[in-house]
Amino acid sequence: MSISTISWVNGNVKIIDQTKLPLKLQYITCRDVKTLWKAIKVLSVRGAPALGVSAAFGVLLGIKTFKGNDRKRFVAHVLKTCDYIGTSRPTAVNLFNALDQMREVLVFCPDASVAELKKRLKSQAFAIYEEDRKVCRRMGDFGARLIKANNRIMTVCNAGALATADYGTALGVMYSSKKKKRKCKVYACETRPLLQGARLTTWELLRAKIDTTLICDNMAASLMGQGKIDAIFAGADRIARNGDTANKIGTYSLAVLARYHKVPFYIVAPRSTFDMGIESGKQIPIEQRSKEEVTSFGGRPTAPKNVKVYNPAFDVTGHKLITAIVTEEGIIRPPFKVNIKKKLL
Amino acid sequence: MSISTISWVNGNVKIIDQTKLPLKLQYITCRDVKTLWKAIKVLSVRGAPALGVSAAFGVLLGIKTFKGNDRKRFVAHVLKTCDYIGTSRPTAVNLFNALDQMREVLVFCPDASVAELKKRLKSQAFAIYEEDRKVCRRMGDFGARLIKANNRIMTVCNAGALATADYGTALGVMYSSKKKKRKCKVYACETRPLLQGARLTTWELLRAKIDTTLICDNMAASLMGQGKIDAIFAGADRIARNGDTANKIGTYSLAVLARYHKVPFYIVAPRSTFDMGIESGKQIPIEQRSKEEVTSFGGRPTAPKNVKVYNPAFDVTGHKLITAIVTEEGIIRPPFKVNIKKKLL
Repeated sequence: MSISTISWVNGNVKIIDQTKLPLKLQYITCRDVKTLWKAIKVLSVRGAPALGVSAAFGVLLGIKTFKGNDRKRFVAHVLKTCDYIGTSRPTAVNLFNALDQMREVLVFCPDASVAELKKRLKSQAFAIYEEDRKVCRRMGDFGARLIKANNRIMTVCNAGALATADYGTALGVMYSSKKKKRKCKVYACETRPLLQGARLTTWELLRAKIDTTLICDNMAASLMGQGKIDAIFAGADRIARNGDTANKIGTYSLAVLARYHKVPFYIVAPRSTFDMGIESGKQIPIEQRSKEEVTSFGGRPTAPKNVKVYNPAFDVTGHKLITAIVTEEGIIRPPFKVNIKKKLL
Repeated sequence: MSISTISWVNGNVKIIDQTKLPLKLQYITCRDVKTLWKAIKVLSVRGAPALGVSAAFGVLLGIKTFKGNDRKRFVAHVLKTCDYIGTSRPTAVNLFNALDQMREVLVFCPDASVAELKKRLKSQAFAIYEEDRKVCRRMGDFGARLIKANNRIMTVCNAGALATADYGTALGVMYSSKKKKRKCKVYACETRPLLQGARLTTWELLRAKIDTTLICDNMAASLMGQGKIDAIFAGADRIARNGDTANKIGTYSLAVLARYHKVPFYIVAPRSTFDMGIESGKQIPIEQRSKEEVTSFGGRPTAPKNVKVYNPAFDVTGHKLITAIVTEEGIIRPPFKVNIKKKLL
């Protein structure tokens, strides 16, 4: 993939401004944490794995301006920076995992100088970045085993190159499948309210020359009812120990529809998405987003001002609706409680 | 209801321009058939029952300009006008039913003069209009029996006053329920791509002071999964003899989700929506609409230009997913094949 969603360039974080896609391929150069924080907040950069990399790079931005050699002050500064970055997207487990990995550097080097810590934080951030790239390829290769030639696949939101530092999660499966000469046809759900499917998924799939058809979210059942969908692949924002999966709003809807129509429903996500600290999806907090995302479009109102709105960013798909979860360690099938532990612990 | 969706004023058809809602309450005065044809085509006026009334009034517009007393020429002119109106929305059965009722006037008055025919066509059109108003009230009253106080109801598209000459079909149930002092809370699915739910349903429900929450279509399952929906009410564009129902795209999706979550799923439609000539939903042609409805919004593109699009206007909900059909003759329950015949023939 030639899409560079996030990279470290001359001491700054360079990201694609995904709010401008598909109209313009425009980059944002984040020279400080605040700019990056805002980019995460307004979804200029999004997608679970890309958020992990962003958080790690964000810490590097935060320490750029630190002056002096006072270790205690430096540690406090890094921890504060981590906490600050954590407030940008409170539901994103990858973001917190990456921040924890950065914090561990401090814990494991109790005697290191400020200069040494800076160096180690930098290598940790780059390790997270490189790991994401490797992990994408491995997930793609495992997932491609689930695809037959000419399969018609449905996907939701953007779980692609734009959501990671490389190949994507759910879309990585399609890229890998294409590389193996097993072409597939993709139906992308537009994914209201922010249209990540329409704006981002179609954009990157067309760039990769994959046969892509855009649909509104409420058309998915119509296609399944006609027997036109062979499998559904979605990403994940957080997966509980029992396999319950939080992902973009609408994912649960597709999973229920898939069950009714006997279509296999797959989640593709790296181990960093698993939150082994929570037993089930009931413990996953659901971010509620602003009313205006639903009542207006491009600044133009589309509903009466005084209407109430329900606008959850995610929903939780119970593990019973999931056929398998594709990870970099292989394909995990039910019973998930047992097999997730076996594969990932 | 104080909403006058369609009316005959000084020899012209006055309609609310629904493409302008909810921003502006603006009327279009159709002085000729062509203007009305276009208004139907671009959905300035829509909704199955309102289309029936529009078609009947359209015939009156068509005969306004007819000069002379040549009966043969007049009949040909009326038939041509009817055919022309029929091309505006080829899927709308109410439109064709109304046109057939207008044609019947010609058949049943073989000896009438042009002046006499004009008079009879006018009373026929007004009879269709009055009938729609009566039928709305009756459906609303029957449907309200299915609602308990404080029920949380979901609806799709706009099956309200804006879709009829009076009270609406699915929303009529809520209006009637409110009149009977059984308040309910309504969740309106925005209904992509044209957002009739966001633009029209919320607008008219708020005017009627009904507690209304707007959601994106892909959020419906999330609410049902949390046990927050007590019933779903939808309108219909065409119902086959076995109860299979074509309605706005996304209706089938809600019906499948309702079945999974054990939520009752009701269709509200007048007998004019039933097409006894077709045995099942398989025979209902599905109108495919333009790609631009999905790839742009308010003139602003939201997806790459070269992406393919699947944009059906309707889907068909199999009768097995329908709990009951509310008509002006009463509530029809399964087995539909038998009971539709019993109630409506």
